[in-house]
Amino acid sequence: MRTVSRTAFIEQLGERWDKQDTMLCVGLDPDPARLPLALARQSDGVQQFCRGIVDATAEYVCAFKPQVACFAALGTEDELARLIEYIHENHPAIPVILDAKRGDIGSTARLYATEAFERFAADAVTVNPYLGEESVRPYLEYQDRGVIVLCRTSNSDSDWLQMHPQAEPVYLRVAEAAVHWNTRGNVMLVAGATFPEELRAIRAVVGDMPLLVPGVGAQGGDLRAVITFGCNSRGVGLVINASRSVLYAGAGPGYATEYARKAADAARDMRDEIRRLQAELAPDRAVI
Amino acid sequence: MRTVSRTAFIEQLGERWDKQDTMLCVGLDPDPARLPLALARQSDGVQQFCRGIVDATAEYVCAFKPQVACFAALGTEDELARLIEYIHENHPAIPVILDAKRGDIGSTARLYATEAFERFAADAVTVNPYLGEESVRPYLEYQDRGVIVLCRTSNSDSDWLQMHPQAEPVYLRVAEAAVHWNTRGNVMLVAGATFPEELRAIRAVVGDMPLLVPGVGAQGGDLRAVITFGCNSRGVGLVINASRSVLYAGAGPGYATEYARKAADAARDMRDEIRRLQAELAPDRAVI
Repeated sequence: MRTVSRTAFIEQLGERWDKQDTMLCVGLDPDPARLPLALARQSDGVQQFCRGIVDATAEYVCAFKPQVACFAALGTEDELARLIEYIHENHPAIPVILDAKRGDIGSTARLYATEAFERFAADAVTVNPYLGEESVRPYLEYQDRGVIVLCRTSNSDSDWLQMHPQAEPVYLRVAEAAVHWNTRGNVMLVAGATFPEELRAIRAVVGDMPLLVPGVGAQGGDLRAVITFGCNSRGVGLVINASRSVLYAGAGPGYATEYARKAADAARDMRDEIRRLQAELAPDRAVI
Repeated sequence: MRTVSRTAFIEQLGERWDKQDTMLCVGLDPDPARLPLALARQSDGVQQFCRGIVDATAEYVCAFKPQVACFAALGTEDELARLIEYIHENHPAIPVILDAKRGDIGSTARLYATEAFERFAADAVTVNPYLGEESVRPYLEYQDRGVIVLCRTSNSDSDWLQMHPQAEPVYLRVAEAAVHWNTRGNVMLVAGATFPEELRAIRAVVGDMPLLVPGVGAQGGDLRAVITFGCNSRGVGLVINASRSVLYAGAGPGYATEYARKAADAARDMRDEIRRLQAELAPDRAVI
């Protein structure tokens, strides 16, 4: 349960964009099989690994995004709650996006909103729109939290549904609905880096609404196209996620001692590349 | 973790239809605010309540369907695991459908399959298709379990997406895809009782594939239309869910002592009504 008052998610995000000058989000998807061996052997190895990544990359990120499934598969939700608490305490300016992707009828969605915002004290959460507005509405009532609706996900297997039909594809209907739902300014959309044309179409529909952009790292999305088509009128507006390419950047010789530094290097490099492209493509952007 | 070998989900379901002659599923959606007061005061009140309902209604059901969100909101996933274990031990012939509705990219879907089938030892699980085939495939690899894909959900808020566009609506694309995915005979679809026309259209697409039908109880779906349009060529093929109308049937005077008996009465009445309609509408059905 969240007891300390925090700045609203959207404001936190704006501060990270403008003052810390970063649109990079690090996804916390710990895989026990990919931890440094010395950590994998310890009972709290996942927790230690995640905290190491968090501390090492904090200055380079606008948000952290833990993946619930990584903890749910192991039955370690309490570990996830502890990790989020750790981030709030040690990096209070950085918002935490819970990657949960729940979607259910209204009465059940309300319980999942409780899960995300009270139990896990997340600042924002990803939500699946397949069951319509009532599956999103209970989250929206938490005015200080962010609600990130799946729109055009980064995987090509989703074409079959999200791109149907050509004339008025489902993903654009979701974008239009999200604009309608966004009466409190706390809605975002997931728009995969792997589909820059759709990113452009979404941006045209949603104005300056922030977008969570997965698919740049291991999935091969093009960062230049993301910045070109995804930024809002202020030259920001993106939360560009990288998970595996940062978390496991140090895998190889010296992994146990170097994993956090290598993750920091990967995060800094990517943040800098995003900045460079912003400067090139939106040179008038104001950085405070 | 599931250690005891169990009959495959689809076979269990067939046995309940044919030998126990029931298509009723009781949804286990415990709400701490609606428990009998004497139970609500106890630390394991939810567990006791659910076990009471399970024991009282077991002979009338073809499946139990616990809702993950009810436990996730309280952080009591271990209670859910204990409840499912209890059902397996005490009512081994009755399959357990975990109502989770997860949906994510392949690597994450694999973790959610682990959550459903290994951690919670469920016999089947509900899955959201918004991210496409890769979000379903990891579940399908568990050949002895059931995978129940959201197709046409029971809530009208979903029209906007599932009924789009008129000529080839999304829900029918999901039904067609499910037929394609069903190489091992372990796929089902969710088809809401509130939309009998769509139930008929789904049945026309999927052949004898079983359907999970929510929306008959509190949501007001018409049981006669469900049996008329939903049954397969053998006059069965449905898992008709009721949650609140059974769980809280005894609310009122004497609730604490009567809740289980009243739930049993409500379940028996509904099972009998389903049977009566089957006999009327599919008189040639063989009951063993």
